This record gives sequence, C-alpha cells and structure tokens, in this order.
Amino acid sequence: MSSPIEALETPMLLLDAPRMRGNVSRMASRIAALGPVLRPHVKTAKCVEVALAMTGGRPGPITVSTLREADEFVQAGFRDIVYAVGIAPNKLPHVARLLEQGVDLTVILDSVEAARQVAGFMAGRPRTLSVLIEIDTDGHRGGVEPNDPVLLEIADILRAPGVRLRGVLTHAGASYECRDPQALRAVAEQERAGAVGAARRLRAAGHEAPVVSVGSTPTALSATDLGGVTEVRAGVYVFFDLVMAGVGVCQPEDIAISVLTSVIGHQRARGWTLCDAGWMALSRDRGTASQAVDQGYGLVCDLQGRVLRDYTVVAANQEHGTIAHRSGDPARLLDLPVGTMLRILPNHACATAAQHASYQVVDDGLCLAGRWTRFSGW
Amino acid sequence: MSSPIEALETPMLLLDAPRMRGNVSRMASRIAALGPVLRPHVKTAKCVEVALAMTGGRPGPITVSTLREADEFVQAGFRDIVYAVGIAPNKLPHVARLLEQGVDLTVILDSVEAARQVAGFMAGRPRTLSVLIEIDTDGHRGGVEPNDPVLLEIADILRAPGVRLRGVLTHAGASYECRDPQALRAVAEQERAGAVGAARRLRAAGHEAPVVSVGSTPTALSATDLGGVTEVRAGVYVFFDLVMAGVGVCQPEDIAISVLTSVIGHQRARGWTLCDAGWMALSRDRGTASQAVDQGYGLVCDLQGRVLRDYTVVAANQEHGTIAHRSGDPARLLDLPVGTMLRILPNHACATAAQHASYQVVDDGLCLAGRWTRFSGW
Repeated sequence: MSSPIEALETPMLLLDAPRMRGNVSRMASRIAALGPVLRPHVKTAKCVEVALAMTGGRPGPITVSTLREADEFVQAGFRDIVYAVGIAPNKLPHVARLLEQGVDLTVILDSVEAARQVAGFMAGRPRTLSVLIEIDTDGHRGGVEPNDPVLLEIADILRAPGVRLRGVLTHAGASYECRDPQALRAVAEQERAGAVGAARRLRAAGHEAPVVSVGSTPTALSATDLGGVTEVRAGVYVFFDLVMAGVGVCQPEDIAISVLTSVIGHQRARGWTLCDAGWMALSRDRGTASQAVDQGYGLVCDLQGRVLRDYTVVAANQEHGTIAHRSGDPARLLDLPVGTMLRILPNHACATAAQHASYQVVDDGLCLAGRWTRFSGW
Repeated sequence: MSSPIEALETPMLLLDAPRMRGNVSRMASRIAALGPVLRPHVKTAKCVEVALAMTGGRPGPITVSTLREADEFVQAGFRDIVYAVGIAPNKLPHVARLLEQGVDLTVILDSVEAARQVAGFMAGRPRTLSVLIEIDTDGHRGGVEPNDPVLLEIADILRAPGVRLRGVLTHAGASYECRDPQALRAVAEQERAGAVGAARRLRAAGHEAPVVSVGSTPTALSATDLGGVTEVRAGVYVFFDLVMAGVGVCQPEDIAISVLTSVIGHQRARGWTLCDAGWMALSRDRGTASQAVDQGYGLVCDLQGRVLRDYTVVAANQEHGTIAHRSGDPARLLDLPVGTMLRILPNHACATAAQHASYQVVDDGLCLAGRWTRFSGW
C-alpha cells in the first residue's frame, strides 16, 4: 500500500528509488565496459536493500568502513567483504569472529608495525586472514607510496602463516577536490598507475598479489582505462550529492536522497524562512563551501522534488534550518505558508543519511513505497 | 563490575561521570542562587540517566528539541516538557497523543499563522495545549521582537478554547558568538530584558503569561540578575565542549565526553598520525573554526584524558582522523605506536554525542562503570 509523503512527520529522510536505480545502472554499465569487478562501498547507504540494488539483486562483493557494517551485511548473506580502513589491533578479535563465521574478510594496512601485529595475532589460528597493502597514490590520507621500499618489507612480514597477502588497495581521495573532467581523468590515471605499479613490484619480488583495488565515485566515473585493475570500489554514486554535482559527475536532479522538512516560520526583514531541518537532520557537512557553488547546508526543492536553484539552507541549528535566497536579498524571501513541506538535497549523502535510522522510499513522485532500515555505529 | 577502557573496540564515546556531576552541580547551584527554576535541555544528552542527573535524581521539568525526545522521556516518567522548536502542523497529531497520555506539554510559535493552525487543531479536543510565544531577543533565529504589535495579535488568537497562553520563551543564540565575560553579561541581560518586557506587554493587555523562559549555557552561566525570569533552559553544560571553552565558560578539563580512538598509521613526512575517529565518530562540526583557537575536529588527549594541547584532528574522512601538531611542523609528529589509544574532546557535544548510540561511562580514570543508552531521530 502506498501513501503520500505529505502524511509524514518532518524532518524525514526520503529515498527516490527510480533515481537510485538510474545511478546504480550508470555505474554498473560503466565499470562492466572497462573490465574490473565492481565492489561497491556500502558505507554511504548502510542498508541491505540498497546494497542489494548495488550488487544486482543478490549478495556480491562489497566494501565496508566499519566492522559493524560487516556484521550486518553478513547477516544479510554477504560473504566477500573488504574492510577498507587501516586495521587497529583492538579490532582483531572482532575480525577473527567474522572469519570463524566463514566470511571472506580482507583487511588493509600500511606499516611494518601493523603487519607484525596482524601476523602475530593470526599465528596459530584456524582461519587465514586476507590482507591488502594500502597504497598512497595522491598524498591524501594513509598508504605506502608505490615506490617506497617499505612496501616489500610489509609484504615479507605477510608471508607468515594465518595471513595471506592478496594485493594492493588505493583510494584517490584527491578526486573530490577536482573541478573539471580533465583533472578527474588525470587523478583516475594516477590512481590506476600507482596501484598497478605497486602490485607489479610485489609480483617482481615473488608475491602473488592478484588484487589491484582502486576507487572513488569521481575516478570510477572518469577513468578511460583501468588496465591492470581488478576491482573498483565506489559508494556515494548510489545516491550522489551536491559535492558530487560540484565535482561535475552528476546533476542535482540525479540526487536520490533528500530531507523532507516543514516551514515553521519567517523572519521577513532578514529574508529568512525557518524550517525544521537543522544540522541534526542535514548533518554539519559543508563540503560545497570550497567548491564554485556553495550550497550552504543543502539545496532547497519543492515537495515534488523540483530544485529551487537559488534557495539554500544558509544556517543550521540543531533542529532549525534557515532558508534564504543566494543573493541575501530579503525581498526574495521564500514566502511559503507555515507548514509547507520542502525537500533539501544534501551536500554529502554519507553524512546526511547517517543522521537517520531509515529511508522513506518514494517510488512514484509523492507515493511511499516502503521504509528501509539503516544501521549505524561500530 | 568495572573493566578497563583499553578493552573497548574503537571508536567509542566515553562519558566521564565525575566531570558530568561537577558540571551539573555548578549550573544547579548558580541558577538556584539567582532564583528561577532550571528546566534543563535534554537534547545534548538524549539519555535518561543523564537527564535524571540534571534534574536531581527524579523526573523534573525538561526542555526537548524533538517530539521523539518527549516520547522517550515520558516513558521514563518525565511529565513537564517544553518542546522548544516552532511547531509545524504535521506534528500536531503527535502533540495530541502526548497530551492524551497526561503529559504537561508546552509548544512554542511565533506567528499569527501558526497560532491559528494550533488553535484550529485543538478546538473541540478534550485536553488543553500550553503555548509560549517565541521572542527574538538577538536577531539570531526565530521569534517575535518584544515590541512587535504581532505579539498581541498572536496572544489574542490564543484566547481560543483548547489552548492556553502561558507566556514567552527566548534563546540567546548570539551568546555562542561572545568571546569575553562582559559581552556574555550584556547578552544575558538583553535576553532577560527582552523576554520580561514581552511578558509585561502581554500582561498589560490582559493575558496571564506567568512563564518567562530564557536560556543558553553561556547566558545561564553569565547572568548576574534574572529578575522577572521564571525558568532557565540550558543543556550543553552537562558535558561542555570546545566551543564552550572558546566562549570562556569552561576549561577543556571540564569536558565530560570524548571519543576513544586508536592510532592506525602515520604519514611521517607530512607530520600526520592517522586514527580511527573520523567525522562519523566526531561529527562534522567545526564550531571552533570561527573562534580564537581553532581546534580542528577535536582536541587530542591521552588515554587517561590528559590534554595534549598542541595536537588536534586537523582533517577527517568518514572513518579516518588526521592528527597533527598545531604548527604543522612534521618534526612534531605525534609519534605513538599503531594501536595506541587516545581520547578526542569534541567541538560540539550535541553533534558528537549524536553520532553514537550509547555512552561508555567512566567513573574512575580508566574503569568502566556501565553503558547508558542514547536515542535519536524524530
């Protein structure tokens, strides 16, 4: 039974299912054409229904950002999981519990120290833990540089029993700072070449290293050659967001999640329309602040989802959002009655979705097709 | 049974119970000395155990920012609740359900339009809804200016059956932008005088208006006279945070919550220590960015909670935090082994706590005294 979204209490997170399916299909066909396996990152959605949409309807290879995600997706039947955050020793007992459930879990690390900790912990255990060495291809976060001698030192430690070096993994976080297709293609190639080069060094030193894992939504949508890459990780494409629109890999009309909100008042002299979506519903993410178009705390749409291009949430308190015209001109107040419902497109889908416990799924304009549960925590 | 915090999996939210009790007692004795009732805002903690600590051990008057908070605290025995966000019409059925449970619920509004909606909805219902008119005393958010003629128009609409005008409410949000005690005292007096003045106007026009509700943590801790004020709302004082330290109303050593994290790697050439507390664990709040001391995404402490004054989380990805020295000098890398546990003090306690489902309560240095559940959502 479907019911109209006007019956919801605000604020509430909406998921536009047709848009999500379009985004999923765009990425799937692109990666299929380039060759590697797609291993979607499920940290954006943290939702079984969404992950299944990303893996073609049945459990497939996925990437997670927390062991809690691994636990939840294992419950839902997923078995092939890369945990793509450098492993901390206090998480190894949790990792061991997942292995004992028969999960094909891979962890990543980027130091001799962590390799020794992992090898030491796994020694004498019945299951073998797969490990990828994290490669730094853009100076953005963690990882070993492709030509750093420490790469081979780490690999040698991982010849120990209980662990198996499967290859390398990199994430071109710098792609989020790109602003044009040429720069994106260059970062994508740098990501590919760095990871493939590191894997070649490992193989030349006698390691198998069958896996070359790269990925980010911007590079996955910009790469023209993925030669040598075996898998691509990307996640935010499932919903897209205003940061991705600013990077240039989607349009606001592709964004599949939004926060439903109500007008609760006005400060006419200041040109402000107050709504009940504050940072608790939108998140504090200001990822568009450093882009060409600053979208404040989010871009305003009407109830039907039509973008009101010149209205953004210019300020946010915990449960209050302040909507104003980009010009700041009070005469251009968004003059809608108290109670009018609007949708706010998110700067960063991962951050906004994380503020909510479920998605209200909209399948046909204003009709609700169901409610999908999200999980959170560690 | 207590167990050491070193046994926890990171990231995890810690609550230092002795610090919390000290903060609660400081505010309680201050407001008691000034005269009004303290009606703590429970939106920071969203936790029954913490709210009970704030109300002296048994349910007392509280302020909430969502009807979900009202639902949860009603379950825990609280009955006298102010919902301090301008009411939206889609929430009125929820409000009515709370009234039917015997809850003494008060809503706020600041327009003729909203007053008509509320009066129209309540007409003919068995219970009476209490209403406060929101007053704007600092141009910060919503509310009617104390001398605006609309104040009396709204009050006249609220003479209708089913509703009862109980007075006025204001929040001096501008106090968060203060940087010295003199400015804080001035904002506190402006908040008091504006609210008291609005209530006087209502009374002069024949309305009872017994309630004059003011509040924010900085003004509550700075006011020297609360003449005419009947109740004070404040919330973040229960934990305090780096923004409040920047405003000058606490020290970092008073902050009662922190995020426990582990070192997961280093980028020595850049002076970076990577940890597993990213923005998912810390929140995206950057409230100290506009203060004299920018604390990044949080201030680093050792496992025992001793502040490492010159180390902050300078960047955050979803599950990665980058710790560096304030100088940016790579030679001053925080050189701790992978696996070392640290605590990160939050910029904004409300935002950081909201990223977690519970508090691990630390009562005596490194011992865990229990786990308190938080709730979230609307």
